[in-house]
Amino acid sequence: MKKVVTLGEMMIRFMPKGNLRFEQATEYEAFYGGDESIVAVSLARFGLNSAYVTKLPQNPLGDIAVNKLREQGVDTRYIARGGERMGLNFYESGVSMRPSNVLYDRRHSSMAEAVPEDFDFDAIFSDADWFHVAGITPAISDNAAELTAAALKCAKKHNVTVSVDLNYRSKLWTPEKAQQIMRPLMQYVDVCIGNEEDAEKVLGFKPDNTDVNSGKLDIEGYRQTFLKLRDAFHFRYIASTLRESYSASDNGWSSLVFDGEHFYRSRKYDIRLVDRGGGGASFAAALIYALLNDFSLEKAGEFATAASALKQTILGDFNLSNLPEVYALMNGNVSGRVQR
Amino acid sequence: MKKVVTLGEMMIRFMPKGNLRFEQATEYEAFYGGDESIVAVSLARFGLNSAYVTKLPQNPLGDIAVNKLREQGVDTRYIARGGERMGLNFYESGVSMRPSNVLYDRRHSSMAEAVPEDFDFDAIFSDADWFHVAGITPAISDNAAELTAAALKCAKKHNVTVSVDLNYRSKLWTPEKAQQIMRPLMQYVDVCIGNEEDAEKVLGFKPDNTDVNSGKLDIEGYRQTFLKLRDAFHFRYIASTLRESYSASDNGWSSLVFDGEHFYRSRKYDIRLVDRGGGGASFAAALIYALLNDFSLEKAGEFATAASALKQTILGDFNLSNLPEVYALMNGNVSGRVQR
Amino acid sequence: MKKVVTLGEMMIRFMPKGNLRFEQATEYEAFYGGDESIVAVSLARFGLNSAYVTKLPQNPLGDIAVNKLREQGVDTRYIARGGERMGLNFYESGVSMRPSNVLYDRRHSSMAEAVPEDFDFDAIFSDADWFHVAGITPAISDNAAELTAAALKCAKKHNVTVSVDLNYRSKLWTPEKAQQIMRPLMQYVDVCIGNEEDAEKVLGFKPDNTDVNSGKLDIEGYRQTFLKLRDAFHFRYIASTLRESYSASDNGWSSLVFDGEHFYRSRKYDIRLVDRGGGGASFAAALIYALLNDFSLEKAGEFATAASALKQTILGDFNLSNLPEVYALMNGNVSGRVQR
Amino acid sequence: MKKVVTLGEMMIRFMPKGNLRFEQATEYEAFYGGDESIVAVSLARFGLNSAYVTKLPQNPLGDIAVNKLREQGVDTRYIARGGERMGLNFYESGVSMRPSNVLYDRRHSSMAEAVPEDFDFDAIFSDADWFHVAGITPAISDNAAELTAAALKCAKKHNVTVSVDLNYRSKLWTPEKAQQIMRPLMQYVDVCIGNEEDAEKVLGFKPDNTDVNSGKLDIEGYRQTFLKLRDAFHFRYIASTLRESYSASDNGWSSLVFDGEHFYRSRKYDIRLVDRGGGGASFAAALIYALLNDFSLEKAGEFATAASALKQTILGDFNLSNLPEVYALMNGNVSGRVQR
Amino acid sequence: MKKVVTLGEMMIRFMPKGNLRFEQATEYEAFYGGDESIVAVSLARFGLNSAYVTKLPQNPLGDIAVNKLREQGVDTRYIARGGERMGLNFYESGVSMRPSNVLYDRRHSSMAEAVPEDFDFDAIFSDADWFHVAGITPAISDNAAELTAAALKCAKKHNVTVSVDLNYRSKLWTPEKAQQIMRPLMQYVDVCIGNEEDAEKVLGFKPDNTDVNSGKLDIEGYRQTFLKLRDAFHFRYIASTLRESYSASDNGWSSLVFDGEHFYRSRKYDIRLVDRGGGGASFAAALIYALLNDFSLEKAGEFATAASALKQTILGDFNLSNLPEVYALMNGNVSGRVQR
Amino acid sequence: MKKVVTLGEMMIRFMPKGNLRFEQATEYEAFYGGDESIVAVSLARFGLNSAYVTKLPQNPLGDIAVNKLREQGVDTRYIARGGERMGLNFYESGVSMRPSNVLYDRRHSSMAEAVPEDFDFDAIFSDADWFHVAGITPAISDNAAELTAAALKCAKKHNVTVSVDLNYRSKLWTPEKAQQIMRPLMQYVDVCIGNEEDAEKVLGFKPDNTDVNSGKLDIEGYRQTFLKLRDAFHFRYIASTLRESYSASDNGWSSLVFDGEHFYRSRKYDIRLVDRGGGGASFAAALIYALLNDFSLEKAGEFATAASALKQTILGDFNLSNLPEVYALMNGNVSGRVQR
Repeated sequence: MKKVVTLGEMMIRFMPKGNLRFEQATEYEAFYGGDESIVAVSLARFGLNSAYVTKLPQNPLGDIAVNKLREQGVDTRYIARGGERMGLNFYESGVSMRPSNVLYDRRHSSMAEAVPEDFDFDAIFSDADWFHVAGITPAISDNAAELTAAALKCAKKHNVTVSVDLNYRSKLWTPEKAQQIMRPLMQYVDVCIGNEEDAEKVLGFKPDNTDVNSGKLDIEGYRQTFLKLRDAFHFRYIASTLRESYSASDNGWSSLVFDGEHFYRSRKYDIRLVDRGGGGASFAAALIYALLNDFSLEKAGEFATAASALKQTILGDFNLSNLPEVYALMNGNVSGRVQR
Repeated sequence: MKKVVTLGEMMIRFMPKGNLRFEQATEYEAFYGGDESIVAVSLARFGLNSAYVTKLPQNPLGDIAVNKLREQGVDTRYIARGGERMGLNFYESGVSMRPSNVLYDRRHSSMAEAVPEDFDFDAIFSDADWFHVAGITPAISDNAAELTAAALKCAKKHNVTVSVDLNYRSKLWTPEKAQQIMRPLMQYVDVCIGNEEDAEKVLGFKPDNTDVNSGKLDIEGYRQTFLKLRDAFHFRYIASTLRESYSASDNGWSSLVFDGEHFYRSRKYDIRLVDRGGGGASFAAALIYALLNDFSLEKAGEFATAASALKQTILGDFNLSNLPEVYALMNGNVSGRVQR
Repeated sequence: MKKVVTLGEMMIRFMPKGNLRFEQATEYEAFYGGDESIVAVSLARFGLNSAYVTKLPQNPLGDIAVNKLREQGVDTRYIARGGERMGLNFYESGVSMRPSNVLYDRRHSSMAEAVPEDFDFDAIFSDADWFHVAGITPAISDNAAELTAAALKCAKKHNVTVSVDLNYRSKLWTPEKAQQIMRPLMQYVDVCIGNEEDAEKVLGFKPDNTDVNSGKLDIEGYRQTFLKLRDAFHFRYIASTLRESYSASDNGWSSLVFDGEHFYRSRKYDIRLVDRGGGGASFAAALIYALLNDFSLEKAGEFATAASALKQTILGDFNLSNLPEVYALMNGNVSGRVQR
Repeated sequence: MKKVVTLGEMMIRFMPKGNLRFEQATEYEAFYGGDESIVAVSLARFGLNSAYVTKLPQNPLGDIAVNKLREQGVDTRYIARGGERMGLNFYESGVSMRPSNVLYDRRHSSMAEAVPEDFDFDAIFSDADWFHVAGITPAISDNAAELTAAALKCAKKHNVTVSVDLNYRSKLWTPEKAQQIMRPLMQYVDVCIGNEEDAEKVLGFKPDNTDVNSGKLDIEGYRQTFLKLRDAFHFRYIASTLRESYSASDNGWSSLVFDGEHFYRSRKYDIRLVDRGGGGASFAAALIYALLNDFSLEKAGEFATAASALKQTILGDFNLSNLPEVYALMNGNVSGRVQR
Repeated sequence: MKKVVTLGEMMIRFMPKGNLRFEQATEYEAFYGGDESIVAVSLARFGLNSAYVTKLPQNPLGDIAVNKLREQGVDTRYIARGGERMGLNFYESGVSMRPSNVLYDRRHSSMAEAVPEDFDFDAIFSDADWFHVAGITPAISDNAAELTAAALKCAKKHNVTVSVDLNYRSKLWTPEKAQQIMRPLMQYVDVCIGNEEDAEKVLGFKPDNTDVNSGKLDIEGYRQTFLKLRDAFHFRYIASTLRESYSASDNGWSSLVFDGEHFYRSRKYDIRLVDRGGGGASFAAALIYALLNDFSLEKAGEFATAASALKQTILGDFNLSNLPEVYALMNGNVSGRVQR
Repeated sequence: MKKVVTLGEMMIRFMPKGNLRFEQATEYEAFYGGDESIVAVSLARFGLNSAYVTKLPQNPLGDIAVNKLREQGVDTRYIARGGERMGLNFYESGVSMRPSNVLYDRRHSSMAEAVPEDFDFDAIFSDADWFHVAGITPAISDNAAELTAAALKCAKKHNVTVSVDLNYRSKLWTPEKAQQIMRPLMQYVDVCIGNEEDAEKVLGFKPDNTDVNSGKLDIEGYRQTFLKLRDAFHFRYIASTLRESYSASDNGWSSLVFDGEHFYRSRKYDIRLVDRGGGGASFAAALIYALLNDFSLEKAGEFATAASALKQTILGDFNLSNLPEVYALMNGNVSGRVQR
């Protein structure tokens, strides 16, 4: 069983019940998530040996985070405990033309203040096959950026395949800071996941003419960007999800994958969104699974797109879909009929 | 006031609250239903003398089932009490491309183990005008199949008009078993309701080219099937709902009715689904009402389609719409404007 | 800071939780609203000095009504207390082709039985810049009609700009009664808001060919009606929202504004409705804000349309959107993307 | 099967969820009740032929009221439909030293404005064995008082046994008005139910020294009052529940019954209150059942006390306990152990 | 780390939300439990290597059961999958004098139909220190009784310490059947847990004078019974919880432990019950922990009583308290003060 | 109208719904509170001019905090906006012997990092009659301690009466730190509120023999401590609430007030707790009201005790009781009877 390691921060997401605005909320639903933990959960559910590395406070909220991962079959043995607090975010879910709104409250979190000494990376990576981290993790603090670098170096030392989901977050850092931190890390990366905005903000590759707010996609622009990224950083694979935001309630969802030579654009799903959160991470997880299982480029693209589309019909951060469901969708069962 | 009798099993449907997946559910909504009880409730709401025949356990869950029917005006005097348990099902409601999922837990139910001696069919049918049963009922057990046969024979003996909704359930039986049980019963049937899949699986009439998963409809195929059914079983009426499953959230809904000579295809409704469960049974009920009231073929088709479309905007199994609402929709008020 | 005064009745709206039908409801959500209070809240949120005039019973429900307004920054000092009861309504929210249903239970309310002596209109209007009332208020009772007339006269005496939202309510009065009361009041009105149905029922201007149930709009008919209204009543501005009721779940929403010379039709929003209630009042409020701030006709139309479209994505009566959100939508951010 | 008729008003009780104060409530639970409907439901559950007479509005809320009764097996055929509105009340449930608070909103209700011509009392009483009405019904309006008198007279004409639960309501009328209406009606009454406060306020019998707020009971005072009532009005039975209000959360509950000669004081239950509403009416119902079944005075007192104590552990107005549960409690099973 | 193995059936308990009666329930809370799984969870939380053995259906409900155990740190590797259905029960929670009510619906469950071949007991017990089973497990079916016997024999073969919680269930079997099955199994048992009723019904030792419904305890009777059990079956330890059912809302809770020579009666807790379910199993778990850690008899009794008292203040089947909380309570912190 | 100023931090309290443990919670109720804001709300409800001073972040959560105060009539004009985050806490509500648990997450909050320059204290205090602060505020950070000192000095400069609620919080600071900060501030204080633990931890006055965990009270010890405090700090009034923690569900509640010469111990309430949070602050508020209105020592003690007892029957932080309710309870209406 292949072993995949992910590194990142878990957060509790507090969301007003029933699509209410913050100011209407008397009750909040609480979801545990965070990009790399979502990847870890997906991979455990797909049957891999999936280990998640983070630091969590020594309190009941931290205990719960561990248990939620354990419930899903994630290996939690490398999780460090201590520090000041859980990262939090407050999430107001949009509807129609009203956009969702996220308030981060994750500064000073245990993970934001973790140091490389909190983890035994050699032990973690010695028998690992894959390491994945999102660009959110180095963005949360200088400590976390240093930690990310240390992990990437150690992973490479152990010949672990490395994927990075660029995932630019404008509420956490600036493009300047992002590029200063992230560009040097690209030397360790085999598989790069990110859309055009990410490529521009995180790696400095300005697309020519795409308007990210228009909802229309410039596939040719993507191709050009992928080629430039390949040439600059020698990635083995580059992939991007293609989200078309018709509204906060309905999105188009497809992907573009590239093996350094061929491009494959997946089928597009028009999704009635239940929770768009975790869509990107679910794509990353499914792509890792596909590449670890030597799927063809086409099959990998369809598998990852189907898995992450399903996620967006499920409330909460984790992709609680299963392999047979992903295959069924990927093989064309899109009608949503009941099986009775 | 015309008297209609229906026979079948009531179940409690447990559905995770708020469209959650089973594994997310800490709370379940409980709905009482079952095909023929849905028919009985609709007919009582439309003003007929509607009697429901079943067997329910002698415990609080069985009591509640009776009271739910009584609340809706159904005549419950013929219901037998006893046996081991209520039939149950667990229902995960799909969204968008994620399909709904049903887990039946109805084996060993009171109705599955009922015997003809539990009921006085002569008393039940002596003053009845119509008898309706769905193909689900003989599917639940050999006992229930025998019971269904006994009821059909007795109904015919009393010159009661008989309708059957074929309603194939792949989780209850195989096509072979279905045909072995159902074909001999067709001699008692005046009005047959069922789609092409039902005709194939339950009666063995293979359609030529319809793909039930594609969501596209082959109306010509339906016509051919109806003609064959007429010739084989001498039904006076044949009808089918035509569901187009765009996704688990949105369906097209129309119907085709046939009086042995003329076909009528109803207007099509595009439904934002609240609960698609009970759509077919609500169609059957409204068709029975229409035929008992000598509606024209066209009016019958439109009435039954409108009634069953409304059902699918209502949570739960029963069609809690009223005659004036059905007429308003059937007469073209589809805009959903508020009346203030 | 400009001072705006509104006059009307507050009601509690009881709505079955979760889109249930009345007969399914064991729990009701309670919302405080009423057309002019919605206007008052919007204007307070936009930063104006917004005073609301009404009469509320001297009991906890009346206290809550005052507090809800105070929470939103509305000036409640002119509210009279006393009388028999709160106005109520019961609201069943429709879905798809199933329309919403409103049961008014507002007779004998404190406001329905209020008299001019309950209020010191000279004090209220002496420093006011604008007065707004909806056609619902004079419709609730003869007392309220008299009160409305007294307020309009006093407002004009103090040179306050006056807007009226015609807002015909067939469950409160007949066209004959409406015209008898409303036509004489038009002499005090500067800004008239109302759709074609309102113009016909409340002012007696029969449109030539619009079918309000068809969902299709006859913009040319609107233009003709506006010109006739201008000529008859010398309004400075006339405006109408243009609702296209595709279904109870999805509506089109745009507006037509007219400054006596030029017409401007706004962009149209296709709204996945959360709660259509308060759409019209939110439009009126935003139009008042726009005119008080000397927006161009085009900007006024777009601002008011965007603000009121946002309202319909928010549960409850009040428009809990903020100025920056309205500007963002008006400036084209319709994709509902999350800002992270 | 004995036939019992009750006459009164049904109301919807709106109660903030979760013991919240009115001003905290965003959601209300809705319960259908009203004293005599509670009696009717209890008697139907105990197996009697139980008919309820009232007038309900011709709208969905009125329909639901009928269905709730039908669900419980009550005969609803005599219910008149029409009039303006449902009676409502808003109920804030107290805890510990914080008392419950009731806001009546029942003026102008269909029942408050009903007239004798709405009902065919001769048909209603011709085959009845018992008629019951509470002192609340004549208190709601002059019309209702007149209606009550007409019903009582007609019941007596048909030799129906009559019980009255005095049930003084200070928010509906004054002692003067109550005595003026109620004293002349006592000639028709066989069984009188009421505590000392009722006897004083409704019939003018001042107790000597009981302090109703102290929670302590003066049983001797009750005895004296009962003797005086017997002598004045020739009641065959007099009964009173004895509530000791330790707090809004815990009450003592017992009763005193009197057959004109002997007194019997029941066992006392210390109740952890779930919902004290309907306690008195449940006592009345159970006493009627006991007397119709010729229970001994002692058995009648224990049965009625046990039944009404159980009610107070159940949320909502109706006493959803069953005969075997009442007998089990009455026979000493007070430990609340689970039967597994 | 000591390894403890438990064997039994997991059930889903469906409980109406908010203490409602079955007939009021529209929503049910779902809890996973079952005696031995409760023991397994407690021991995992206390830090032992805790393995649970059962058979669960191959469906989502079975998956969830596994995940719930995994979340708590239980070793689920020995769980067999297959069979027909989950065991269920419906639980109506009592209040005050109204008792709780349980409807079992566990016949034909996967575990009820499991056979010894479903499990590799030699592997399971080869490195185990303790084996625990409750008397419920052999009661659910003949298969389960055979399975229990096989497990006990195999455990003894591997010199594993064995505890049994007699736990008589009158809804599952009769005293005759219980004794026939259970008495022969006592030869394998080292630690016997059970109250006087269990001793009588399961092992045939009739107590002289205890009345289990009175709520009063006859400690001397318990002592006599323990001595007789020791002499008959050579148990090393005998223990019983002592529940005093003041009402369905409040219970007294203490215990009596016996090491074959000395008796120790624990402190008594007066518990405001949140959920009494799982009290006995939590006691058994804590006693096992105490004995495995060589606590003194007194400390063992206090530890087990405190742990199981805490359980009853927690909703659901599992004892979600932690070691420090148990020690704090056991050491006298009973005031429930907040630590701030 | 007397003006009272309070200074402190507002927090959001997240509490698992329905008394669940943290690890069971999928939904949290959110309450806004914080000691001095509770005082401010009580005083506004009692009719005083009540101004609250704090710093809140410039985000929706901060906006809501302002609105919640405005809803209650608190003057929010002095509230500074800015800084990093809202203070939060997570609160697990105890039951019976299971204690409540609080996790503070308030470091780095806007108020913790506020500086004196954020506020214009001269403007704030120039027309104030009273200033109140709790010992929690200086405990949250060095900045906040400095701010508290600056406010106290300025208040004294303007001859404002000053009260301090010592309120020791072991999770915020140590006794050493507390004494170092708080003792020098006592020179500005006229009215000191605090129990024996506070006097010891915050001011260094060790009681002789009280055991705060025993639940028993040593009134004589309190008297001795009050005398020593008077002599040391020249307080004009000293007061303490006397909480007897029978369990997490039931507490005794009374108080001891001292005017420098006479002691008065109030009546004791046995409270079935709904939410003990805010009890102390509600006492402080009511005592301030009493002293500002020149109540006698006895009346002041009874008023403050009744008001704060009522608070504990209400969910959330604020004391949503009203003056008439406080007077009713104080005057002996403790039976919780419904007024109908």
